[in-house]
Amino acid sequence: MKKIAIVMGSKSDMPVMESCFKTLEEFGIPYDVKVLSAHRTIDEVIKFCESAEEEYEVIIAAAGYAAHLGGVIAAKTILPVIGVPIDASSLNGIDSLLSIVQMPGGVPVAAVTIGKAGAKNAAVFAAEIMAIKYPELKEKLKSYREAMRKKVLEG
Amino acid sequence: MKKIAIVMGSKSDMPVMESCFKTLEEFGIPYDVKVLSAHRTIDEVIKFCESAEEEYEVIIAAAGYAAHLGGVIAAKTILPVIGVPIDASSLNGIDSLLSIVQMPGGVPVAAVTIGKAGAKNAAVFAAEIMAIKYPELKEKLKSYREAMRKKVLEG
Amino acid sequence: MKKIAIVMGSKSDMPVMESCFKTLEEFGIPYDVKVLSAHRTIDEVIKFCESAEEEYEVIIAAAGYAAHLGGVIAAKTILPVIGVPIDASSLNGIDSLLSIVQMPGGVPVAAVTIGKAGAKNAAVFAAEIMAIKYPELKEKLKSYREAMRKKVLEG
Amino acid sequence: MKKIAIVMGSKSDMPVMESCFKTLEEFGIPYDVKVLSAHRTIDEVIKFCESAEEEYEVIIAAAGYAAHLGGVIAAKTILPVIGVPIDASSLNGIDSLLSIVQMPGGVPVAAVTIGKAGAKNAAVFAAEIMAIKYPELKEKLKSYREAMRKKVLEG
Amino acid sequence: MKKIAIVMGSKSDMPVMESCFKTLEEFGIPYDVKVLSAHRTIDEVIKFCESAEEEYEVIIAAAGYAAHLGGVIAAKTILPVIGVPIDASSLNGIDSLLSIVQMPGGVPVAAVTIGKAGAKNAAVFAAEIMAIKYPELKEKLKSYREAMRKKVLEG
Amino acid sequence: MKKIAIVMGSKSDMPVMESCFKTLEEFGIPYDVKVLSAHRTIDEVIKFCESAEEEYEVIIAAAGYAAHLGGVIAAKTILPVIGVPIDASSLNGIDSLLSIVQMPGGVPVAAVTIGKAGAKNAAVFAAEIMAIKYPELKEKLKSYREAMRKKVLEG
Amino acid sequence: MKKIAIVMGSKSDMPVMESCFKTLEEFGIPYDVKVLSAHRTIDEVIKFCESAEEEYEVIIAAAGYAAHLGGVIAAKTILPVIGVPIDASSLNGIDSLLSIVQMPGGVPVAAVTIGKAGAKNAAVFAAEIMAIKYPELKEKLKSYREAMRKKVLEG
Amino acid sequence: MKKIAIVMGSKSDMPVMESCFKTLEEFGIPYDVKVLSAHRTIDEVIKFCESAEEEYEVIIAAAGYAAHLGGVIAAKTILPVIGVPIDASSLNGIDSLLSIVQMPGGVPVAAVTIGKAGAKNAAVFAAEIMAIKYPELKEKLKSYREAMRKKVLEG
Repeated sequence: MKKIAIVMGSKSDMPVMESCFKTLEEFGIPYDVKVLSAHRTIDEVIKFCESAEEEYEVIIAAAGYAAHLGGVIAAKTILPVIGVPIDASSLNGIDSLLSIVQMPGGVPVAAVTIGKAGAKNAAVFAAEIMAIKYPELKEKLKSYREAMRKKVLEG
Repeated sequence: MKKIAIVMGSKSDMPVMESCFKTLEEFGIPYDVKVLSAHRTIDEVIKFCESAEEEYEVIIAAAGYAAHLGGVIAAKTILPVIGVPIDASSLNGIDSLLSIVQMPGGVPVAAVTIGKAGAKNAAVFAAEIMAIKYPELKEKLKSYREAMRKKVLEG
Repeated sequence: MKKIAIVMGSKSDMPVMESCFKTLEEFGIPYDVKVLSAHRTIDEVIKFCESAEEEYEVIIAAAGYAAHLGGVIAAKTILPVIGVPIDASSLNGIDSLLSIVQMPGGVPVAAVTIGKAGAKNAAVFAAEIMAIKYPELKEKLKSYREAMRKKVLEG
Repeated sequence: MKKIAIVMGSKSDMPVMESCFKTLEEFGIPYDVKVLSAHRTIDEVIKFCESAEEEYEVIIAAAGYAAHLGGVIAAKTILPVIGVPIDASSLNGIDSLLSIVQMPGGVPVAAVTIGKAGAKNAAVFAAEIMAIKYPELKEKLKSYREAMRKKVLEG
Repeated sequence: MKKIAIVMGSKSDMPVMESCFKTLEEFGIPYDVKVLSAHRTIDEVIKFCESAEEEYEVIIAAAGYAAHLGGVIAAKTILPVIGVPIDASSLNGIDSLLSIVQMPGGVPVAAVTIGKAGAKNAAVFAAEIMAIKYPELKEKLKSYREAMRKKVLEG
Repeated sequence: MKKIAIVMGSKSDMPVMESCFKTLEEFGIPYDVKVLSAHRTIDEVIKFCESAEEEYEVIIAAAGYAAHLGGVIAAKTILPVIGVPIDASSLNGIDSLLSIVQMPGGVPVAAVTIGKAGAKNAAVFAAEIMAIKYPELKEKLKSYREAMRKKVLEG
Repeated sequence: MKKIAIVMGSKSDMPVMESCFKTLEEFGIPYDVKVLSAHRTIDEVIKFCESAEEEYEVIIAAAGYAAHLGGVIAAKTILPVIGVPIDASSLNGIDSLLSIVQMPGGVPVAAVTIGKAGAKNAAVFAAEIMAIKYPELKEKLKSYREAMRKKVLEG
Repeated sequence: MKKIAIVMGSKSDMPVMESCFKTLEEFGIPYDVKVLSAHRTIDEVIKFCESAEEEYEVIIAAAGYAAHLGGVIAAKTILPVIGVPIDASSLNGIDSLLSIVQMPGGVPVAAVTIGKAGAKNAAVFAAEIMAIKYPELKEKLKSYREAMRKKVLEG
């Protein structure tokens, strides 16, 4: 199974992304974590993209403020890129959400929820994508859903 | 190759979704189109979900106003659900965007751009997902990108 | 007198909804509280709806983020559904408000104030609805108003 | 059967409210239409409220801009007040929505969708309220839903 | 010199309004403070308005959430009404601002800044209004400005 | 009776301000109209302010985009300044509204409704201010209200 | 005198940018226009940046939707980058504005007004920057201002 | 080398602007700091502008609420003015951002990020502007970028 790459624009996004790591581990999906900024380390982002296809199946890009990380990666690879808007500026993450989701036609980034809920959702969505190729993940997704269901019902 | 399902909340979303159909055709990806409303035909939405896994690999859900369609489908399947916010109400689609993207942790819907650009992006993103299983799509995605690149450069 | 059902998308909405419970108790209106998520336990939500008409007269649905709970219940019953937007995400509840109030034509959810004020208002509004059938509630509503009035005037 | 009162802040709201009238007629619910402004005819609004309880079971209040009409009526009666935000100013109705829905605790106005979809939803919601007292409306609501369902499915 | 009336929708607005009181005192303008809610004590608001013209020259109305207080007073008097939006709900006062400022044509409420800065500005604006009748206030306003100027320049 | 000054940031604001002129004429209040931009003619704005007190009692400042006109005038005079936000940019006037209303503590500009309704409201509010000095305006304001009331009631 | 580069994300931005070209011509500042998309032609954007320092002094980057063009150029050059938000999507340009202006610390893009006013302002701002090196531009800027002033004053 | 002027609307903006000072020091660019309010000390702002051209090459204007400081300075000088929106009011700085960036055509203020990130970005952008005249700054900017790059990569 190829890995998922989790790229974050800043080391300070790490605590928000914890539930992303943890969720991928629950699914047994291997992943790499990289701190790479679209603005401060664009050459490294581009270098990362050039070999990304060999190593990764899906890319999760988390960033705050004007979150261009997902857009740059989407421009340089044909892998599915999931963007997690981080609530880092004074605008509560609406700046990051619009910077991620409002991609012009032809080069999509798929956005999930702002913040911690989005970190978890990026992992689940990545697992759903992976499951179309690795059917064993389908059962894991169903168990994950069942566990959630039980947790809600048991209070 | 399994199909992609495109579900729309209303027949009036059809013209916005044209570029989604056209783009999937460019990629040679088979798809079904269904008009099913999360609010007016919820039983049919749920019935659709129950057999969706057998027939489809990815679901594209387009809706305006309080766009719950993607969320309901995501709750009932473990397929990746891509949500297209439609600019149908007076609020320019920000209502649909937030209704789609702000899913609570555990049950993701991945949002793309509001409106026509999103319709196209949903198709491209679906193709990127499919490409992890069907490698022939990778080349098509690269050609698609190359054609876009040329179109921009040639003006 | 039939009961009111208060459905919450998450156990964490409980403290916000306290004033809803308390207010219904002041009016002597019986109620049930259920934690049921439109996304994590959609089957249970639908099962709940199927017998809701026999047991309940009004449904109060409280949820944060992309709050689809009220919409799903409204789609499955013909009881009046009051939606309480919960300020749970980084967006201060505007995401929940729009997800609740912007229902497309034909399947209404009636929204009240975001957060604690809305929890109380949902209870009062439910009492106002019940009062058209149970006239004894009219007097209680008048006393409630009178008590509020006095509290403001006495400082 | 008591009537429903539809109060509009301005004659110019009439075309938006057409689908409200039409929908109530479909349900066979009698209604009165009044143009009364919370700001330009407050005495008449208050006079209207003083006898509203005798004549009406539910009040629908439609207004644009800073929509205070519902709030004033809610302050003066204990009838359920449904507020329809009208998209009349340059702000696309978000001003009216917030003026209607954000009522402080204790005096609710229940908001529906901005504009024409809200006009229809106010009527359906009023019918759902009335149905708890007049059970014959329950069947009509079910038929209404069924007709909507068919219309979606038949395209 | 007639007095200024400061009306607040809730006792909890008192701390925000402190700088309003203090500023009026600096100008030597007499004022009354009243806690009167447009929704919980509308009769008292209307009674207040009926004799307001005799006692007051200007009315300052402070309220949070859907702030209808200024609009109701403006509808019942021909005195200038200054509205102070209070940041009381989860929406940071944008709900109150729009409820105050977006009055339909013909019945104005003049809005100042949200929160404490607005409380002070309401007092200064009231003094500027009073100064057209009581010229001694012009000198006081100039001294007030001069003191502010010095405070900024001296750091 | 001293005059009211109506200052507009751009000649293109003239059609929006028509109802301001007309309403002042209805009240018989003399006024001057000036096109002066806070950004393109700041020296003229300042010169205007230096003699404004002698000639005018109230200033109405209308501007679109980042509407600084009212703020600059308020900084240079102690006359009451009423700001009319003009819906000139793509942001529907919310930029102008916030630029006008959110003045820091000590130097108020009083904002009215965005656009044409605000143009009229600025005139009425100016008349209400003038009426505290010129009691004959009180009767005119009452007649104006009465005429509005009749127009609403007669449909 | 080195040139200014005007880079646009899409050919469809051309009409909005007309006043940028015209204004630079008025100042006699040479410029090149390029259509290069951060998403569809990122390699060309990067290649452009690599030699930009030799040819250009200032870069103007105009883009709509999630406008990443300025951010990518800013990441790859140390030239001043001025971003023009284009009102291309359904969100009136607020998406582009936030994508441009909310750059994280260390890699600035300087934003101007959304749309046509911004196109002109980008040119004037570029001229102001150039003027610190080419003093003859100072006189031209003063004449430009003087001409604007006269145009406002002459109506 | 001429200096940069940093003008702040209020002493309370000082802590936000610390990173601006520090960054200019890293570049060895001389600067003056002034607290001058567009509203409370407009005469001093104008006096400052009249001699600004002799002393300064670039002006950084930081302000919260309705941030007119940059606009007034831009109206009075032909120096490049960079505006830093300060998150001082309840609206998270969106009021300041729009007041700064939405300048009408012809008189630009260039906006950077809201708050601390913007304070730093204003300094870097000023250095980029200065570098077109003082080439030694180009190397410093490259080192600054390199240091940032290393800091991200080293974690």
